[in-house]
Amino acid sequence: MGIVVQKYGGSSLSDADAIKRVARRIVDAKKAGNDVVVAVSAMGDSTDELLDLAAQVSPLPPARELDMLLTAGERISMALVAMAISDLGFTAQSFTGSQAGVITDDVHGKAKILDVTPGRIRSAIDEGHVVIVAGFQGVSQQTKEITTLGRGGTDTTAVALAAALDADVCEIYTDVDGVFTADPRIVPAARKLATVTYEEMLELAASGAKVLHLRSVEYARRHNIPIHVRSSFSTLEGTIVTGSINDPVSEGSMEAPIIAGVAHDRSEAKITVVGVPDKVGEAAAIFTALADAQINIDMIVQNVSAAATNLTDISFTLPTSDGQSAMATLDGLKDRIGFESLLYDESIGKISLIGAGMRSHPGISAKFFTALAEAGVNIGMISTSEIRISVIVDQDDVDRAVQATHTAFDLDADEVEAVVYGGSGR
Amino acid sequence: MGIVVQKYGGSSLSDADAIKRVARRIVDAKKAGNDVVVAVSAMGDSTDELLDLAAQVSPLPPARELDMLLTAGERISMALVAMAISDLGFTAQSFTGSQAGVITDDVHGKAKILDVTPGRIRSAIDEGHVVIVAGFQGVSQQTKEITTLGRGGTDTTAVALAAALDADVCEIYTDVDGVFTADPRIVPAARKLATVTYEEMLELAASGAKVLHLRSVEYARRHNIPIHVRSSFSTLEGTIVTGSINDPVSEGSMEAPIIAGVAHDRSEAKITVVGVPDKVGEAAAIFTALADAQINIDMIVQNVSAAATNLTDISFTLPTSDGQSAMATLDGLKDRIGFESLLYDESIGKISLIGAGMRSHPGISAKFFTALAEAGVNIGMISTSEIRISVIVDQDDVDRAVQATHTAFDLDADEVEAVVYGGSGR
Repeated sequence: MGIVVQKYGGSSLSDADAIKRVARRIVDAKKAGNDVVVAVSAMGDSTDELLDLAAQVSPLPPARELDMLLTAGERISMALVAMAISDLGFTAQSFTGSQAGVITDDVHGKAKILDVTPGRIRSAIDEGHVVIVAGFQGVSQQTKEITTLGRGGTDTTAVALAAALDADVCEIYTDVDGVFTADPRIVPAARKLATVTYEEMLELAASGAKVLHLRSVEYARRHNIPIHVRSSFSTLEGTIVTGSINDPVSEGSMEAPIIAGVAHDRSEAKITVVGVPDKVGEAAAIFTALADAQINIDMIVQNVSAAATNLTDISFTLPTSDGQSAMATLDGLKDRIGFESLLYDESIGKISLIGAGMRSHPGISAKFFTALAEAGVNIGMISTSEIRISVIVDQDDVDRAVQATHTAFDLDADEVEAVVYGGSGR
Repeated sequence: MGIVVQKYGGSSLSDADAIKRVARRIVDAKKAGNDVVVAVSAMGDSTDELLDLAAQVSPLPPARELDMLLTAGERISMALVAMAISDLGFTAQSFTGSQAGVITDDVHGKAKILDVTPGRIRSAIDEGHVVIVAGFQGVSQQTKEITTLGRGGTDTTAVALAAALDADVCEIYTDVDGVFTADPRIVPAARKLATVTYEEMLELAASGAKVLHLRSVEYARRHNIPIHVRSSFSTLEGTIVTGSINDPVSEGSMEAPIIAGVAHDRSEAKITVVGVPDKVGEAAAIFTALADAQINIDMIVQNVSAAATNLTDISFTLPTSDGQSAMATLDGLKDRIGFESLLYDESIGKISLIGAGMRSHPGISAKFFTALAEAGVNIGMISTSEIRISVIVDQDDVDRAVQATHTAFDLDADEVEAVVYGGSGR
């Protein structure tokens, strides 16, 4: 008998009726002969409601206490899901991240999973229970403190459980039908992908596609866990994330798309450090300081220095939520590094073209930039990887840029599928 | 430096402003030079809201999962209180019952504390933190499952922490000014007691006075922990629960009242087992079965059996919440015991007169029954202890019975104190 791990986000657990629907879905998987382990997020908007409460009590709450607070959300949803399963005549037990053996480092608010020791979960499975695990949370290895994994953390919990339990598949239930070639709210002709490789999904997730959290895809690739992204509101097959772009079957397949899709992201800001002395170690000093402050950097561009002044500009993008903290960190370095000034811009958007096929097809970037130019979109920064090209544009140009790119690469479907598209909870 | 344990109920933690007020109160105790450990209930009505959610998902949720659900309530309030303290420039850490070392038996929903191993709390105190502990919850010794102590459990958590930490005092903050001679909502002339013995408080709590939970008073008496019941809305001295009725200082004191107060309780139901064969072991069989079903019985009355039939009736009272479960349990015994029928009555009330003085003063019960008769109140059942007389009356007669008794025993104050009176949260 195989183990299936399922994940349900907050939008699939918005109220008692939604929880009962999820319970029926879980019981169906159990009836089909599987052992079932489920990772759940907090109900609906309850995490935001808890954050609101915290903000009312303290403008800068201690991270340890914020994790203690937020983990109450999954505790509520997991107990309710277990009750709903029991009401259908099946037996279920819920476990906190700590009880489930989700061991993390001690960085409150964005902890990383170090290990999963699922002893209690295995016992519960052996006793015939459906197992419900609180997503998004764990316990720190050294200090035994409750930690959270950050937004989207429940995807990672599900994949980590699937890896630790050697599950057949990790099913991520969300409010969309799968992974699309672009956001259908912007491109109504976007198509659902039947399969996508880990690498492509990583680039899509890193480029703003919200359907799967980046870290969960990294974890799945490292442990070779197939992910099935599908809707909790229908029984349609979704998108299977699996395989490698180096896998001959995948690349040789006639159906392997050259371009997987177009992603966009409005959640980043751009910081420019103006007038940095062009000498060894300056960039290292800047990005070491930002890393020490736990700030994740996305794209980095350094201009060629002007010969006359021997000064250069360094621009980078980062989550808007880290923007003020990064500006404060850099401001503290001003004297040591000797740069001239800092510029901050939140009105940017990122458009990314992703596909395993592009490395063997020259001219992709030329075609991409031409499509943007013809749509009247100005390009601010450019960054490329083997299977991705990203550009920074003005935030107002994002929709137009996505549409133009989708059409230019022949991704538009003949018929428009009816889909709901949105965040995947956490 | 002494340790002060404080307890705040849900009504003292109803919203962000209330939490900030509680935080200021805690910080005041810290500033006064104490180490402070605080047990908190869930915010306002949040426990009832969680119970509502559970009822929407399942009519009879598994007890394990109900405990998992309800313990989220204290997790939220404790983290918010810690944040509010931190916002005042002091450092605080919150701990779940499990983290605080509250070890219980494994009876979900009404677990009993077996031991408190406050290692993490002591470390946190030594590091200078104010310690906030989730009330009402613990972890079972054998199965390591999350348990709850039942309604009023946070009072018991606070007293158990005070005992384990050898605290100077356990302060129970509530929404009334202390322990009164009767419920001021019914008897406006009721007086606040400056002190009351553990035994009297036990009888008051067992007789329906909601200000302190019965088990917390038992725990305090066993470990000789003074309890200070006081309002979280004022700085008035409340009521000190301490000492023994056998203590010469207490009994010899000129101010020791003969009668401590009049309590009432509308939360009980009466079950009558009609036509029980009058032979050895029948009562034992009935009450053993009820005990096995974890049902707490209060008063028991058995009639003299009618010689002709050799059948007797046994009546008892119990919490209304256990009524249906008790009826089902007894129904299952019908053939084995051979009784005739069961009667169930929820429209009853209990009036109790309590005071250490009464055992040395004859005529108390006569005066009590006379007062009830003059008020036109019919007595259904009678039960007495050394320091208490309780009667069961019609629920509609409760107010009149309390008022008549309070006046008959000269408990009315000259002036009416302004008080708020209500439940103590849990």
